[in-house]
Amino acid sequence: MLDPTSPIPLYYQLKTILLDQILQGKWLVGEFLPSENELTKQYQVSRQTVRRALAELQREGRISTHKGKGSLVAQPKLEQDLLRFYSLARSFSKGPHRVSSRILHRDRTSAGPVVARHLRMQATAPVVIISRLRYLDGEPIMLETSYLPSSMCPDLEKESNLEALYDYLEVTYGIYIRRAEEFLQAVSPTPEEAYHLKLPQGIPVFLVERISYTPKDQAVEFRHSVIRGDRFRYKVELH
Amino acid sequence: MLDPTSPIPLYYQLKTILLDQILQGKWLVGEFLPSENELTKQYQVSRQTVRRALAELQREGRISTHKGKGSLVAQPKLEQDLLRFYSLARSFSKGPHRVSSRILHRDRTSAGPVVARHLRMQATAPVVIISRLRYLDGEPIMLETSYLPSSMCPDLEKESNLEALYDYLEVTYGIYIRRAEEFLQAVSPTPEEAYHLKLPQGIPVFLVERISYTPKDQAVEFRHSVIRGDRFRYKVELH
Repeated sequence: MLDPTSPIPLYYQLKTILLDQILQGKWLVGEFLPSENELTKQYQVSRQTVRRALAELQREGRISTHKGKGSLVAQPKLEQDLLRFYSLARSFSKGPHRVSSRILHRDRTSAGPVVARHLRMQATAPVVIISRLRYLDGEPIMLETSYLPSSMCPDLEKESNLEALYDYLEVTYGIYIRRAEEFLQAVSPTPEEAYHLKLPQGIPVFLVERISYTPKDQAVEFRHSVIRGDRFRYKVELH
Repeated sequence: MLDPTSPIPLYYQLKTILLDQILQGKWLVGEFLPSENELTKQYQVSRQTVRRALAELQREGRISTHKGKGSLVAQPKLEQDLLRFYSLARSFSKGPHRVSSRILHRDRTSAGPVVARHLRMQATAPVVIISRLRYLDGEPIMLETSYLPSSMCPDLEKESNLEALYDYLEVTYGIYIRRAEEFLQAVSPTPEEAYHLKLPQGIPVFLVERISYTPKDQAVEFRHSVIRGDRFRYKVELH
């Protein structure tokens, strides 16, 4: 089934065949692929070729490999439509997924220069900081830190239930968000981020910075989100 | 200048101050920041705190740290508007940047199952493969592999100048691309990708898969792009 005369490397051919079988449901999520030995024999290739094909599938989040046990089919990455990415709670609350979050930190402090620039306020003016670890189906997937001008949402730091922050802002303070700017980066997590997200070593994250604006174009939130790269992919439609 | 009573960690306070000074132009691109020793003394913090602040700045692409030499201010990340991300050549050809590319591989072969699914064609039907390493100002920044149905663009694999692929498709084959779907992932590069992109270890990449369609909604290109995470960030406007 592999073509040694093709310019396409053997490992890539093998990866493609295995991916195709995964997509066709030959093995279901949580089921084991054949072992390295079995694949080596079946496709008449070297162990190195098999390992590279499997590494490639793991890198793309299609399988997860466990030393001494083998490789099993992973949950597909959660797909997030970039243009509708307003709220995790709103995006996933209607689907089959269960969204929850844990507040790691909430406080009121001065903005400091960087946050102040994003929110177009004085560096000495107070902001509310809310740091949340967000879970999907019990698994930690995002670490989000929001900064909001305290003048716009006094006492927000005293609220202990902020599952759906944007809903809370609307109901409590009449703050409605009309637009946002997002900046996406691909970075390695800090040790602290990796710890909270239970990330295996070598898995990168999306670092997403968002500034949200009211209909009067007043900056109301600067948000710094760290999102597991092995669990998320973004979709965008270009015209 | 640091506030030990604040709940914000000292390293983060220091990082914020240094970032602010970088953004204000205290040091220009290519200039050295003060040494670890100097920062330790100046801000009255531990060397570990200084290192963490610098590591954070490096992770975000603001500085590059060279062992034994110190940290210097990096070029800002190239900002790419996600919704207009049609063509590197078109995006950057009018600006101050110089775009070039090198074809690593071009060939005609059968699609195989995965490409065939994306392009909605038979797995045995021929496709043209074009693999290009793309440079901005002489620096390798993207590794792109395009797959196109050979029936739509016969002999495309024989063309050695494909700097602006979409322009070439329009002019030569009358193929006009009306829309595209993109899927963004944050992944670690393969050793081969890291080699071509001259990526230091531990720097992740964006893996972008794109399917482009004609006005009649015929899939015309499947593209697999690997983009340096330390040089690019995406911007998106949400409404």
